[in-house]
Amino acid sequence: MSSGLKVAVVEPMGVAGSEIVKILDERGFPVRDLIPLGRSRSVGSRIEFRGEAIPVRILDSSSFKGVEIAFFASDKSTSSEYVPIAVSGSAVSIDLSSFYALDQDVPLIVPEINAEKLKTHRGIIANPRGATIQLVLPLAPIHRSARIRRVIVSTYQAVSDRGERAMDELTAQIRDLFSFREITLEVFPYQIAFNALPHIDAFMENAYTEEEMAIIGETRKILGDDHMRISATSVRVPVFFSHAESVNIETAKKITAGEVRNLLMRAPGVTVEDDPSNNMYPTPIHATGNDECFVGRIREDLSSDNGIALWIVSDNIRKGSALNAVQIAEHLMASS
Amino acid sequence: MSSGLKVAVVEPMGVAGSEIVKILDERGFPVRDLIPLGRSRSVGSRIEFRGEAIPVRILDSSSFKGVEIAFFASDKSTSSEYVPIAVSGSAVSIDLSSFYALDQDVPLIVPEINAEKLKTHRGIIANPRGATIQLVLPLAPIHRSARIRRVIVSTYQAVSDRGERAMDELTAQIRDLFSFREITLEVFPYQIAFNALPHIDAFMENAYTEEEMAIIGETRKILGDDHMRISATSVRVPVFFSHAESVNIETAKKITAGEVRNLLMRAPGVTVEDDPSNNMYPTPIHATGNDECFVGRIREDLSSDNGIALWIVSDNIRKGSALNAVQIAEHLMASS
Repeated sequence: MSSGLKVAVVEPMGVAGSEIVKILDERGFPVRDLIPLGRSRSVGSRIEFRGEAIPVRILDSSSFKGVEIAFFASDKSTSSEYVPIAVSGSAVSIDLSSFYALDQDVPLIVPEINAEKLKTHRGIIANPRGATIQLVLPLAPIHRSARIRRVIVSTYQAVSDRGERAMDELTAQIRDLFSFREITLEVFPYQIAFNALPHIDAFMENAYTEEEMAIIGETRKILGDDHMRISATSVRVPVFFSHAESVNIETAKKITAGEVRNLLMRAPGVTVEDDPSNNMYPTPIHATGNDECFVGRIREDLSSDNGIALWIVSDNIRKGSALNAVQIAEHLMASS
Repeated sequence: MSSGLKVAVVEPMGVAGSEIVKILDERGFPVRDLIPLGRSRSVGSRIEFRGEAIPVRILDSSSFKGVEIAFFASDKSTSSEYVPIAVSGSAVSIDLSSFYALDQDVPLIVPEINAEKLKTHRGIIANPRGATIQLVLPLAPIHRSARIRRVIVSTYQAVSDRGERAMDELTAQIRDLFSFREITLEVFPYQIAFNALPHIDAFMENAYTEEEMAIIGETRKILGDDHMRISATSVRVPVFFSHAESVNIETAKKITAGEVRNLLMRAPGVTVEDDPSNNMYPTPIHATGNDECFVGRIREDLSSDNGIALWIVSDNIRKGSALNAVQIAEHLMASS
């Protein structure tokens, strides 16, 4: 019997699921047996993994027999139904759906920041949203050094968060606009081509969206500070991959832009790209396909005595979802 | 001799200049004689105005003889050279180049807000940048009611600010990407298609861009408050027309989101589009071609006791430049 783990990937045909399969291979994760699990529509498809074409099995209550690690690259309803089933077997579940993100009994992990919280898991580990992961990576070292009191973030989010259909919709709208044809709306409520929509997830009672409230709640949980004051505006832009964020923070202790730059140059998972005189700053196109969270435009906030402004970009499908999930699994392995 | 004014438009072939000519016609501005003035490359071209094709004349020191109003839809170097010549004749010059925007002797006008400052002009009136105009339109009534102490703005700016060549560059990049060809960079330093560039105008010593510092300086000047604390991050997005802005403000006096909504519903030049439960909020595509500044996502800033968050969208070529300039001319007429 060969070594390694029996690993399930739920929704392996989706943007995040297929990236998880790819990253498991890239990083040589010790997989003995890969079990791709899909809803009925994906049964019959095959997943390429280490030269093999593995058939997708139907996701049902017996799917997790013997599975040691299960990645849930699924929506909230699928995760809420099947994560408990996986956990009641032997599988540790890493959930990307955000269903468990703010559950007090579930650790919400960005390994560079709070890997130690993995010890407390009871079978479920939540992977944060992409917009949160790239926000907390640079904020964590600043918070440790100067205590962040307030965060204001405006996002520029890629369509790939919403899957292949969203990317196809952007492509088709451009093609139709360039051909003087009527565009089609399915995934997004309005035209996304050449537009910007301040609307990601459903609107809540307080006029914020679920995405905005999730960024706020997840950031507080990961940074371990329930009192951090945070406001978010989440905006979808016609970009395929990588989210960007314009961020203004206020710290309890004065910190200069130079000190922030030095802190971030040593921060794990963070790459500083900040040399305006040479037009160096992060952009979604350049971040895409990379594992790092890129930070530039680091400068003192002119509207605050203790303020810093940042521009943060990271691949929403790699560090923003699949890579972070695989890194969580790697940490589980290392500590077991 | 027919009534009306002798009106010059400098750079009438550009995006802003051609829109000025169109709006002069649309709004029935009393033009007796339209004088389109261009650099040598546009001589030979003709400008359509009220059914006539008027030849573009070369811009030189004798161009402004008898001109009563001159619109400068030109760059800083052309404006700095020819505005003084126009003014030393009889022409009142309305300059869109931003060369005079922060000059203490030059009124910087958004007619809905500070038309009374037109009385102080000495021949030159500055038209603010588009990103400023749409910011101050909703901020002015809030400032009067609750005194704004602090503004943080992140922009989502359309490429048309940089003229036809910028729009052609976005179009060509998409065509080339969809055809698996190398893209060409001329106007923007990096790919703008499917990207977001935190870089508008040159970078300055303090790591802000000229555009960001102009938004700050112009907003203070128009709102008449040198002490207002403002920070800006200006970002170019792959949108042809209309800038969007994510704005967080703090006021001296507590004001609720409902009170802001009521104020803005009565504010001249502002249209409130704010009904999240019906997916109603402004977007660049829907704002384009309209004269108004659209405001939505009005909500209390969760990170501040006296904070309000807003999403502001307006057509950068109409209210953001050409329309505002023509409105200035209309106010000059009305008060003369």
